[in-house]
Amino acid sequence: MTHAKVTPIFANDTLWADICEEARQAAINEPLLSGYLHSTILNQDSLEDSVTHILADKLRCETLKDMTICKVLGQAIKDDEDIRKAIRTDISAFYERDPACDKYIMPLLYFKGFHALCAYRVTHWLWNHERRDIALFLQNRISECFAVDIHPAAKIGHGILIDHATSLVIGETSVVGNNVSMLHEVTLGGTGKETGDRHPKVADGVLIGAGSKILGNVRIGEGAKVGAGSVVLNDVKPHCTVVGVPAIGVGKPCQDLPALEMDHLLDRDKKNK
Amino acid sequence: MTHAKVTPIFANDTLWADICEEARQAAINEPLLSGYLHSTILNQDSLEDSVTHILADKLRCETLKDMTICKVLGQAIKDDEDIRKAIRTDISAFYERDPACDKYIMPLLYFKGFHALCAYRVTHWLWNHERRDIALFLQNRISECFAVDIHPAAKIGHGILIDHATSLVIGETSVVGNNVSMLHEVTLGGTGKETGDRHPKVADGVLIGAGSKILGNVRIGEGAKVGAGSVVLNDVKPHCTVVGVPAIGVGKPCQDLPALEMDHLLDRDKKNK
Amino acid sequence: MTHAKVTPIFANDTLWADICEEARQAAINEPLLSGYLHSTILNQDSLEDSVTHILADKLRCETLKDMTICKVLGQAIKDDEDIRKAIRTDISAFYERDPACDKYIMPLLYFKGFHALCAYRVTHWLWNHERRDIALFLQNRISECFAVDIHPAAKIGHGILIDHATSLVIGETSVVGNNVSMLHEVTLGGTGKETGDRHPKVADGVLIGAGSKILGNVRIGEGAKVGAGSVVLNDVKPHCTVVGVPAIGVGKPCQDLPALEMDHLLDRDKKNK
Amino acid sequence: MTHAKVTPIFANDTLWADICEEARQAAINEPLLSGYLHSTILNQDSLEDSVTHILADKLRCETLKDMTICKVLGQAIKDDEDIRKAIRTDISAFYERDPACDKYIMPLLYFKGFHALCAYRVTHWLWNHERRDIALFLQNRISECFAVDIHPAAKIGHGILIDHATSLVIGETSVVGNNVSMLHEVTLGGTGKETGDRHPKVADGVLIGAGSKILGNVRIGEGAKVGAGSVVLNDVKPHCTVVGVPAIGVGKPCQDLPALEMDHLLDRDKKNK
Amino acid sequence: MTHAKVTPIFANDTLWADICEEARQAAINEPLLSGYLHSTILNQDSLEDSVTHILADKLRCETLKDMTICKVLGQAIKDDEDIRKAIRTDISAFYERDPACDKYIMPLLYFKGFHALCAYRVTHWLWNHERRDIALFLQNRISECFAVDIHPAAKIGHGILIDHATSLVIGETSVVGNNVSMLHEVTLGGTGKETGDRHPKVADGVLIGAGSKILGNVRIGEGAKVGAGSVVLNDVKPHCTVVGVPAIGVGKPCQDLPALEMDHLLDRDKKNK
Amino acid sequence: MTHAKVTPIFANDTLWADICEEARQAAINEPLLSGYLHSTILNQDSLEDSVTHILADKLRCETLKDMTICKVLGQAIKDDEDIRKAIRTDISAFYERDPACDKYIMPLLYFKGFHALCAYRVTHWLWNHERRDIALFLQNRISECFAVDIHPAAKIGHGILIDHATSLVIGETSVVGNNVSMLHEVTLGGTGKETGDRHPKVADGVLIGAGSKILGNVRIGEGAKVGAGSVVLNDVKPHCTVVGVPAIGVGKPCQDLPALEMDHLLDRDKKNK
Repeated sequence: MTHAKVTPIFANDTLWADICEEARQAAINEPLLSGYLHSTILNQDSLEDSVTHILADKLRCETLKDMTICKVLGQAIKDDEDIRKAIRTDISAFYERDPACDKYIMPLLYFKGFHALCAYRVTHWLWNHERRDIALFLQNRISECFAVDIHPAAKIGHGILIDHATSLVIGETSVVGNNVSMLHEVTLGGTGKETGDRHPKVADGVLIGAGSKILGNVRIGEGAKVGAGSVVLNDVKPHCTVVGVPAIGVGKPCQDLPALEMDHLLDRDKKNK
Repeated sequence: MTHAKVTPIFANDTLWADICEEARQAAINEPLLSGYLHSTILNQDSLEDSVTHILADKLRCETLKDMTICKVLGQAIKDDEDIRKAIRTDISAFYERDPACDKYIMPLLYFKGFHALCAYRVTHWLWNHERRDIALFLQNRISECFAVDIHPAAKIGHGILIDHATSLVIGETSVVGNNVSMLHEVTLGGTGKETGDRHPKVADGVLIGAGSKILGNVRIGEGAKVGAGSVVLNDVKPHCTVVGVPAIGVGKPCQDLPALEMDHLLDRDKKNK
Repeated sequence: MTHAKVTPIFANDTLWADICEEARQAAINEPLLSGYLHSTILNQDSLEDSVTHILADKLRCETLKDMTICKVLGQAIKDDEDIRKAIRTDISAFYERDPACDKYIMPLLYFKGFHALCAYRVTHWLWNHERRDIALFLQNRISECFAVDIHPAAKIGHGILIDHATSLVIGETSVVGNNVSMLHEVTLGGTGKETGDRHPKVADGVLIGAGSKILGNVRIGEGAKVGAGSVVLNDVKPHCTVVGVPAIGVGKPCQDLPALEMDHLLDRDKKNK
Repeated sequence: MTHAKVTPIFANDTLWADICEEARQAAINEPLLSGYLHSTILNQDSLEDSVTHILADKLRCETLKDMTICKVLGQAIKDDEDIRKAIRTDISAFYERDPACDKYIMPLLYFKGFHALCAYRVTHWLWNHERRDIALFLQNRISECFAVDIHPAAKIGHGILIDHATSLVIGETSVVGNNVSMLHEVTLGGTGKETGDRHPKVADGVLIGAGSKILGNVRIGEGAKVGAGSVVLNDVKPHCTVVGVPAIGVGKPCQDLPALEMDHLLDRDKKNK
Repeated sequence: MTHAKVTPIFANDTLWADICEEARQAAINEPLLSGYLHSTILNQDSLEDSVTHILADKLRCETLKDMTICKVLGQAIKDDEDIRKAIRTDISAFYERDPACDKYIMPLLYFKGFHALCAYRVTHWLWNHERRDIALFLQNRISECFAVDIHPAAKIGHGILIDHATSLVIGETSVVGNNVSMLHEVTLGGTGKETGDRHPKVADGVLIGAGSKILGNVRIGEGAKVGAGSVVLNDVKPHCTVVGVPAIGVGKPCQDLPALEMDHLLDRDKKNK
Repeated sequence: MTHAKVTPIFANDTLWADICEEARQAAINEPLLSGYLHSTILNQDSLEDSVTHILADKLRCETLKDMTICKVLGQAIKDDEDIRKAIRTDISAFYERDPACDKYIMPLLYFKGFHALCAYRVTHWLWNHERRDIALFLQNRISECFAVDIHPAAKIGHGILIDHATSLVIGETSVVGNNVSMLHEVTLGGTGKETGDRHPKVADGVLIGAGSKILGNVRIGEGAKVGAGSVVLNDVKPHCTVVGVPAIGVGKPCQDLPALEMDHLLDRDKKNK
């Protein structure tokens, strides 16, 4: 069993400096994007301002124009250190774990998993500050723009990778730990028509494969792995792999925290290779 | 076995009055949305006008601007009492069955499952009035805006809940009864390349879990339950639960009409709890 | 076993003439769309110009306006005969294999599977011409507009049908042959966090059902069929049918190239009918 | 002295029928405009609906989208018979008096003098119904869109021609009679900083040449003519011609109502010809 | 001769408090504008932020979206105390001298003379900070949006009223003092094709009537009055009135600073009244 | 009397090379405009393509999107050598005669006089090719966008400077020679309500000052000068200066072709200086 390194929090902001350098290079390589790169990154004072600008550009609509969304996003990000920390660890999660991602600007500019996650973090802040109407409005915009539906009340840790992201659903009373990796079409869904705690609790380091549905108030233990296309209706113990419809245990992941390794094969299959 | 109450049709329009009151309250709570709430609800004369305005705002594009779509939608809704009845029962279905929905304005304003369903109802009217080109145009817009693809020729009853909605597909010759609940990523798909009756028939009160694929001209009997992530290629008898890839019978739902209860757990699992 | 005819390449451009005739008829039937049909088809000089115009209209955003995207798309399509050939065979694939498609203008104007595929072909050309920044930018736009995520580096043949299309994912090192049919929510995904050849290789004539996940550098042989909702983690032999989570062999398709017949039923089920 | 025929009010709506016929012809001649002609005219039920649609399309902005403006305009035009009458006589005024205008659709679709005048008529209704904030909002939009600044409180009769229109200004306490013709850059301006009746009163049939400034609470008598580029600071008697900076009398117009003849030459000059 | 009070600079910001109160009242009176009033005024922290938001909304285009213009405007207004002072005195100038203006929000929201002037002040700052390209870009946007063309290098004092504003032109080497009032179509123009000091110098308190052209490097003395429609090619002495084409002296204004009184009549005419 | 050099036609395209070099420099100086400069100039193959792109961007609206306008403009410019020649001589006219213009990119990108003139040239081509409906549509767009109203049937030579441009009007049967300079608010207007030849004929090298109205079928001879704010109702002989309301002769210009010198002072005034 390997012990992967948990994505660190950036002590000093080398991340922002790296992003600016990447943007400068891209502006030279592709002049058609130079105006875009300047307005979104090189003309911004900080990573927070850059994220705010990028998201406002994507979420704006006739009802809330970009300047107004910009202000709402800016208030949340300025007020909440957790969001600022999560932005950095989420970008790093993409960079570390997605082999198709070799630049920090890629999630920042181009990955809707990052955009949806970051926008959700603002809706969560709004929800907790009793601005539920606008939180629901933005949840809908996120669902329209990115095809990702995360309830503002859900709780999600940092260092999260949501790869491809389309059709992801995370329900109201879900809790997701740190350093979790989820693929597209993952559902953390509720069951029943009564309000109350009815969604999954996903611990640190869990990897959830594409298309998997985890339903009800079940616990997915630390370092567990849920195979692609599985339907999980019961608790999964830490460091266990489950697969199937409905999902059953098929052993243990080769890694301590499978989210960091992104190995989607079943371990029983790998032994045969 | 419990007998759930079927969502009633509103005799007098207390629904519209309730929606207006909720909008007034929301406009006070969140002034940034007050203009939006006035133009979409408080400045409208009826629920029909409000729905028309909201959908036109979302579906408009350079080709069909909102005023033109508004007129097309308005014609259909004015002409077809079934659409008007369905709008009311669909909103109620969300309110009754989705625990995260505690206001009538939530589906009206923020749930793309409601938006897509309601817009499909207009394409169905256009299709039946021999305006197939614009019906197909709008089907595409619905698919682009809400990631929901319902063929205009499909027949869908009232009191329908489409929760989260992303990636839902309902094919040309599908028939869906009343008071059905479907989650996101459900497919009612055809098989083969020949035209003709080739899609599922779903009876009243059926619950279809997230990600389930029902393929071919099969019958899903009244009150049946299709577990999440299942692939159904054969008929399902009334009041039966099926699950798996391919799906097999695993007993009977605890409820007469599982669509009204939204219980996604397998009944065999629940007994162990 | 039947031998279906592979979609031929159009020798002379009767396809473009047919499309123009269909557009003329539609403009008469639905005057509200007449301006649209003229600007996208009847006012264009060739199918290539028409596709360029239609895609630019859909992919434009504040960052890249339609005239600029138009120019980028036009350069690629003018330079690359493969794209021009693929546009024709892809449109024919929809027409031949999708029973709900009885006009050539339907994929051209209304099917996001065709739009996403065609736009991907341009990103592939950009990627190969060392314009990776704008290729990634467009990949993101395609994912936002059509909920389809195809990496610009993936290699995809001609005569491809992507039906409904929502939530399709095709990874960086994937290879797809000719005359393949895929439904919505299909994933050709990678595994692991290391770069390198890590995605599926899909041979000619394969049919992949809705929601299926094929993960890792596995080979799906010529004429194979992957049932809906399956999770494939191992090679599939030519002319074999697999199904399940994880997928296992269940016999051979009734057709030589199942992609051309679109029969989604399991063959064992069909015998019983 | 000739007696020109005053533009009649249309008894039955041959005007609307003529406009529809012209639009049909134009849609055939110029297919690129066919969608526009259908959505603005051929798809409308009446001249009132057509005007409402055309103006809403031009005045819409992020703050008031076209559907909302449409509703505001529609209320005013439905409620006020004077506006409906004026729309018809204004269109006829352009057709009768502007030699470059040989179709009724020309002012309706293309002349900003008509657009500004018609939109002012709605602001006047709003002003009189105590909706001054939105009247001022629209006055600003009219000034931005058409470079025409007419105060909502000004009173203007019917059968008005505002040719070219750019930079026209009509102040708060101005009164303009029926069948008046004004060219671009005409000012009916106030004087002083105190509120009160401080703008010109222009009687029926007056012709005011391009660039003329009429300032203060002065009376321009019936059938008077104000030469281009004049500055009028005193009353002008009926059927008199004035010219110059400041303007002085130079005789009498050759016509009874010079507005109907549009003769801008000085009569003393014409005698020499 | 009366001595009018020069518009004072606001010591404490009662102006901003008054504007907020007016906006609150307007939002109650006209709910359709409530969202607009909140986003532009009530949701802003200061008059500076409000002006920035309003101008960015009007000047934005595909090339420079509102968030980017917002940032540029914000930098200038934050850096330059003169702009901040001028915003306040300009708003007061409208309120004090324009009898049709009885609320401070009117120039702020609805008068393009104020919008153009304020936007020019930012271009002037950009020009002086060696950002001439974007200054010229914005000069063009101001000319397109407001039909006002002020060269970024022109120098303009505070307490300026530009009433109606359409077609105003102020050239590169013009200098305008404090508390000047100008009507629409005023030109401060150059002469000749050589660079150098070639535009008018207008001293404090001057009133320039609608349509007047002042050409060349001439001096218009303090408290002078230029009648409407005049063409001034020579110096005008302080406290003198000129009128005509070309303009000649016709006496002295009744007021010390005619800009503050807005009396457009000739004094010789007034005596006769 | 000085003999100014008539603006030459560019034999080889050093103009386009100069414009590209200026754009490169500006993109370095102002990164916020770099995307704009690339898409409008540096990414274009020729001056014709650049002009087409810039105009389409400004004239586009919901009815005619930029790609469609682009095609219409491109057809005209490709077909008509006169337009191509005029684009070059018009840009040079601004550069040579406007002291505030020291770069070729300034008229190309920022001067609405150039934009309106160039767009008129396309409407003229459309008018002559019997596409009068779209010519009128564009005439209206030009009037809305640039506040310039030039009838498509008017005939205008090359080497034309329209400075500031707001409120310029040129009527249907006007003829303007080569190397003419006009300021804003100039009117070449008709008289009477009968069709026929009723607008001015302006010969080569004429200078027309700001706000001047020339009305009726009068001839303005070669090298004449019309002072600002004048109203011309009679022929003006070659090489004569007229001024006033109505205009009278005041001598001869100091230059052979006053349009090239832009001297707006009266020659009698200059002698006194």
